Amino acid sequence: MNCEIIGVGTELLLGDILNTDAQYLARELAAMGIGLHYQQVVGDNPQRMRECISNALERSELVILTGGLGPTADDLTKEICCEVMGEELVLDEAILENIRSYFVSRGRAMSENNRKQAYVPKNGTVFRNANGTAPGCAVEKDGKVAIMLPGPPRELKPMFENEVKPYLSEKTGGIIYSRQVRTFGIGESDMASRVADLLEGENPTVAPYAKDGEALLRVTAKAQTKQQAEEMCDRIIGKISERIGEFIYSTDGANLEETVVRLLLKNGKKLALAESCTGGYIAKRITDVVGSSAVFEYGIVSYSNEVKQRLLGVSTETFEMYTEVSEQCAAEMAQGAKQLSNADFALSVTGISGPGGGSEDKPVGLSYIGFAYPGGVTVKELRTGKKENAREYNRYVAASTALHMLIEYFKGREG
Amino acid sequence: MNCEIIGVGTELLLGDILNTDAQYLARELAAMGIGLHYQQVVGDNPQRMRECISNALERSELVILTGGLGPTADDLTKEICCEVMGEELVLDEAILENIRSYFVSRGRAMSENNRKQAYVPKNGTVFRNANGTAPGCAVEKDGKVAIMLPGPPRELKPMFENEVKPYLSEKTGGIIYSRQVRTFGIGESDMASRVADLLEGENPTVAPYAKDGEALLRVTAKAQTKQQAEEMCDRIIGKISERIGEFIYSTDGANLEETVVRLLLKNGKKLALAESCTGGYIAKRITDVVGSSAVFEYGIVSYSNEVKQRLLGVSTETFEMYTEVSEQCAAEMAQGAKQLSNADFALSVTGISGPGGGSEDKPVGLSYIGFAYPGGVTVKELRTGKKENAREYNRYVAASTALHMLIEYFKGREG
Repeated sequence: MNCEIIGVGTELLLGDILNTDAQYLARELAAMGIGLHYQQVVGDNPQRMRECISNALERSELVILTGGLGPTADDLTKEICCEVMGEELVLDEAILENIRSYFVSRGRAMSENNRKQAYVPKNGTVFRNANGTAPGCAVEKDGKVAIMLPGPPRELKPMFENEVKPYLSEKTGGIIYSRQVRTFGIGESDMASRVADLLEGENPTVAPYAKDGEALLRVTAKAQTKQQAEEMCDRIIGKISERIGEFIYSTDGANLEETVVRLLLKNGKKLALAESCTGGYIAKRITDVVGSSAVFEYGIVSYSNEVKQRLLGVSTETFEMYTEVSEQCAAEMAQGAKQLSNADFALSVTGISGPGGGSEDKPVGLSYIGFAYPGGVTVKELRTGKKENAREYNRYVAASTALHMLIEYFKGREG
Repeated sequence: MNCEIIGVGTELLLGDILNTDAQYLARELAAMGIGLHYQQVVGDNPQRMRECISNALERSELVILTGGLGPTADDLTKEICCEVMGEELVLDEAILENIRSYFVSRGRAMSENNRKQAYVPKNGTVFRNANGTAPGCAVEKDGKVAIMLPGPPRELKPMFENEVKPYLSEKTGGIIYSRQVRTFGIGESDMASRVADLLEGENPTVAPYAKDGEALLRVTAKAQTKQQAEEMCDRIIGKISERIGEFIYSTDGANLEETVVRLLLKNGKKLALAESCTGGYIAKRITDVVGSSAVFEYGIVSYSNEVKQRLLGVSTETFEMYTEVSEQCAAEMAQGAKQLSNADFALSVTGISGPGGGSEDKPVGLSYIGFAYPGGVTVKELRTGKKENAREYNRYVAASTALHMLIEYFKGREG
C-alpha cells in the first residue's frame, strides 16, 4: 500500500509553522509498513487543493491530509476532499454536542463557527478528537482511501495512535522495520565511505544522513514478520559496528540525552550542570527525557561571571588570567557544580555562541566543555568553525559534546 | 513569479528529519514577494524524482530543490534535475580545490566520493557554500528556473541569504509584506470570531492559526513598494487591536522570549529563574535571544527538593503541608531566586509535566508559576488539561505562561 501526505494550510506555505505532522506520520507509516512516496503542501486555495488531492488520489492508494479542519472560513479540507471524491457532508448532532461540552468543560462558550466542525462524510469513518474540537475522518472510494486529520500535533498524534492505526492496520500486509545507528565525532561522508558497500544493499537498505552535527545511518528492512525484519537489521548493524563502532553511541534511535539518562539510571549516578553559553539547553534536553528527575540533581545557568564566582566558586584569578571562556573556567565550573551538590558528575559549558562576542583568538563557535567525575575533571575544546546564523547550532553542538563526554566516560569503563 | 519547493531525501519520507528548510525558504520567498504555491517531498528515487521535478516545472516558474547534493551514492538531485532539463554536468576544478581545502582546514582528508560534489551544470549559475562542501546551483531553461541547494540548514540558509537572494531579486517585481500579530490567553476560534469580518479581506489578507498554545494572526499585503504594504498592514492591525488588544503582546512577529528580553533591555532590568518541571526550558528560550546576556542574571534548574530548599530556601513546612507542586512552593522559589541574585524579577515554575506523576487533585498538566517583582510575588495556576503525549506541550506552555506574566507586568505599567 503506497501513501502520500498532503499538508493543507497557507501558514505552511508562508513558513509560519513547521510541518512536524509530516515527520510524525512519516515515522508511523514506515513502522506500519506503509510506503510513503510523496509529501505535498498546499495553501487554503480551493482550486489548488482540488488539483493536489486529485493528483494524489491518482498516484497513491492512501492519501492523508493534515490541517484545514479548523472552525474558520479558510479551513476547507473536508469540503474540498469530499467534493473531489463525490462524498456528501452531513451534520452529526452527537459530535456537535461533544464540541459544545468540550468548551463547557473549559468554562468557555462554543462560538458559532465551531458548528462547521460537526459536519462529517455521510459514508465515511469518523475519528474522535480527544484533545480538540475537530474530528478526523476517512472516506473510501474506488479502492482509494483519504484520511483527514486536524493540524495541531497534540490533536493529530493521539488521534492517529488511537483511532487511525487500528483502522489502517486491517488494510496492510507485511511490515517495514527501521533502526537508527547514531554516531558522534565522525563526518557523514567519512562514515559513508567506511560503509560504502553496505549502502548498496536493497533489503535491508542503509541510508546515511547528517543531523545537528551528528552522522546517522538508517537501516530499513522489509519482511513478513517484525522478528524477521529485526534480525535482518541486527545482522547489518553488526557489520556497521565492526567498521565504525568507536563512533556509535546508540543503535536503537536513542539520542544523546536519552542515552545519558539511561546510563545514569543503570549505574545509579546523578548529574549536575553548570551552563554558560548553552543557557539551559543541556538541562532542557535532559529533562525532555521521561524519568530524568531520578538522575538530574540540578543545573545552574550562570550567564553572569558574578554567578560563576559566587555560586560555582570560579576564582578571580581565572577570570583575570584566562577570561570566562577558558579551559580553566570550564574546569572550575564543573568542579564547583559537582561540589555544590550530591551529584556524582557535573558537566559545564562556557563559550561564545555568537553572533557577537568573538575575537581573533577566541572566535564565535569556540567552547570549553568541562566534565567533573569522581576523582578528576577533564575539559574539551570545541571549535564549530561555523560563522553564519550559527547561534542555535553552536549551542546545540556544545550541549551534544558535553552529553557525549559522559557517554564516553561510561563506554571507557564498560570496555 | 510563482514558486514551488521540492525537498529531496528518503530521510524526509521516513521522518528521520524535519523539513525546516521548507519553512525557512517559505518565509524568505514570501518576504521577497515570490508566491509559494506548493511544496513537495520526494525520496531518493530517480523515477519519482523525475516525475516530481517535471510536474513542478510545468506548473511553477521557479522550482527550488533542497537536499540530495551530498557526497553519497543516493544523492541525485543535481543529476536528475539536470537530466530533466537537458543540462550537462561538468567537473569544476576550482570547486574541487575548495572542497579539498575545506577538509584540510579541518585537519581531515577529502574522501573520494566528495569529488561528485564538484560537478556543476555547464550553463548554470553556481552558489558557493561557505559552510560545507556541496555548492548550490541554478539552471534556466525555457523561462523556467531550477535552483538546487544543500539540505543542511546551516549550509542552505547562508547560501540563500548571500548568493540566491541577489540572484532572485533581479527576477521579481512588486512585493508581499507580512506581519504577525501574536496573542496569549485567547483561543484560535474565539479570536477568529472576534475578527471574522477582517478574515474576509482580499488584500491585506488576515489568516488565523494556533501554535503551541498561542493564537496568531498573519496579515499579508501585496503592493508595489514595501512602504505601501506596511501601511496597509498597519491599518488592519489597528483594527485588530481594537477588537483583541488585551491579548496582543507583539505585532512584529516577536515571540514571547524576544518580547521579554526587549522589555528588560528597555527598562534596564534583570531576570532570574527557578525552574522545576520546565527543566531549563525558560532559560533556554531566553538565551536563544541575542543580547539576552545583558538582562538574564542566572537560572537554577531545581529538579530535586533538596536543591529547592538549599539554594532557593523553600521551607520544610511548604513541602510537608503543600508538596512541591503548590502555589506556596512556586512563590518561595521565585522569591528565593530573586533574593539569591541581583535580579529585579524572578520567575519560577513547579508542576507535573507527565506522562507520570499525576494524581486526582494534582493531574498531569498542573503547574504553578511564580513571579517575584520589586515589592511582591504573584502565582498563577495553569491547567493545560492535555492528557496524551503532553510532556513537551505542558513544559512549553508553562514556560510561555511564565514569560507572559513578565510581559503583563510591564503592560500594566505602560498602561
